[in-house]
Amino acid sequence: MITVAVLTLSDKGSRGEREDISGASIEEMLKSIDGVVKHYEILPDEKALIKSKLIEYSDKVDLILTTGGTGLSPRDVTPEATLEVIDREVPGIAEAMRFEGLKKTKRAMLSRAVAGVRGRTLIINLPGSPKAVKENLDVIMDVIPHAIEKIKGDTTECGR
Amino acid sequence: MITVAVLTLSDKGSRGEREDISGASIEEMLKSIDGVVKHYEILPDEKALIKSKLIEYSDKVDLILTTGGTGLSPRDVTPEATLEVIDREVPGIAEAMRFEGLKKTKRAMLSRAVAGVRGRTLIINLPGSPKAVKENLDVIMDVIPHAIEKIKGDTTECGR
Amino acid sequence: MITVAVLTLSDKGSRGEREDISGASIEEMLKSIDGVVKHYEILPDEKALIKSKLIEYSDKVDLILTTGGTGLSPRDVTPEATLEVIDREVPGIAEAMRFEGLKKTKRAMLSRAVAGVRGRTLIINLPGSPKAVKENLDVIMDVIPHAIEKIKGDTTECGR
Repeated sequence: MITVAVLTLSDKGSRGEREDISGASIEEMLKSIDGVVKHYEILPDEKALIKSKLIEYSDKVDLILTTGGTGLSPRDVTPEATLEVIDREVPGIAEAMRFEGLKKTKRAMLSRAVAGVRGRTLIINLPGSPKAVKENLDVIMDVIPHAIEKIKGDTTECGR
Repeated sequence: MITVAVLTLSDKGSRGEREDISGASIEEMLKSIDGVVKHYEILPDEKALIKSKLIEYSDKVDLILTTGGTGLSPRDVTPEATLEVIDREVPGIAEAMRFEGLKKTKRAMLSRAVAGVRGRTLIINLPGSPKAVKENLDVIMDVIPHAIEKIKGDTTECGR
Repeated sequence: MITVAVLTLSDKGSRGEREDISGASIEEMLKSIDGVVKHYEILPDEKALIKSKLIEYSDKVDLILTTGGTGLSPRDVTPEATLEVIDREVPGIAEAMRFEGLKKTKRAMLSRAVAGVRGRTLIINLPGSPKAVKENLDVIMDVIPHAIEKIKGDTTECGR
């Protein structure tokens, strides 16, 4: 079992003005890798609050998925909050999501998503729209179990 | 209308020893997105000077395009100057330019271009050669108007 | 002639518990660009030690290739050591290796390799497995001589 926290970043969602469809979609998709959502919160796009929640859930769960706040609007600060709490960046995860996204829409290049490791927890930013969340998770889902094994200290070699 | 500042980084160009073809080429290409060059300067590859000009034109124009200084020569410091003044990086823009460039030449991987947002202004580094400038702008031109709308505070969702 | 230092990062290798095949493989491949390995060391995955060796060999050789320590295991710190000693990052080199790697295996997105310049020396992280080392070097080998010429101060233009 892979334990997961989902943080939905949305000013409107946190005020109850918009239903969060992405959260439910993520929960359903995670079943394919035996992922179980243990914590789920909808937060406004406040960098200090996002950072504190990322820190709170690190080491409590194997994986933190954020959704939203990765674009260019002035309130989009999820990548900055993430960069400030991770110990080690995993740039290839975000690159792969954008690279695959570019095959569908040029706007994929505007996702500023980052991914990285804090302690023993993998943190991955996903975009806000349910469609983009699904497409992005499809790209990376297969490697998540292996990534988490490594983060937890498995020392067998990847290339063997 | 999208207002634009173009900064050409070239030691030789700033001394008048080389004509700047890239600047004129950029101006012509921007017409397709109703972009109008309001400021245009040729500067030597001096990091402090580049930074001060990027700061000066931020919030005055919607878009700052730099050309030159993105390579590996000791004097190439445009990416470093840009990284030091942006608030938020947009890594996918530079990735997309390199990724498309790789289809034509392996040397595309040596462009150290970065892109990001300072205040309400999008800043994008382009290479120095007129051919590479055209190829790189072709990759990203379509998403620039959308990116600028977002930066200015449009809160409608991308994925809808 | 291109002078090269190869640093193999491996806790097991540094204790003599595992033969380093990647080092020999790199030496053979470098012949195609007239590269000669002048220094070769096997080091444990200790960030401070890796940094001191990267600093020691910078300006002594044209190219430092590291192998290993780019994954997600807690001991993998080669990218962090590299980021702390380079003056200027060359993100496209690592992107190109991952991008080509993704065509073969999704796990390629988990390589956290970075590349950059310290003084007059190009530093490139490679993965640890001999197979991945070969595949990654194949992607970038052709551009290394040009990159090194530029780093050394050749001011002719790439795009001409």
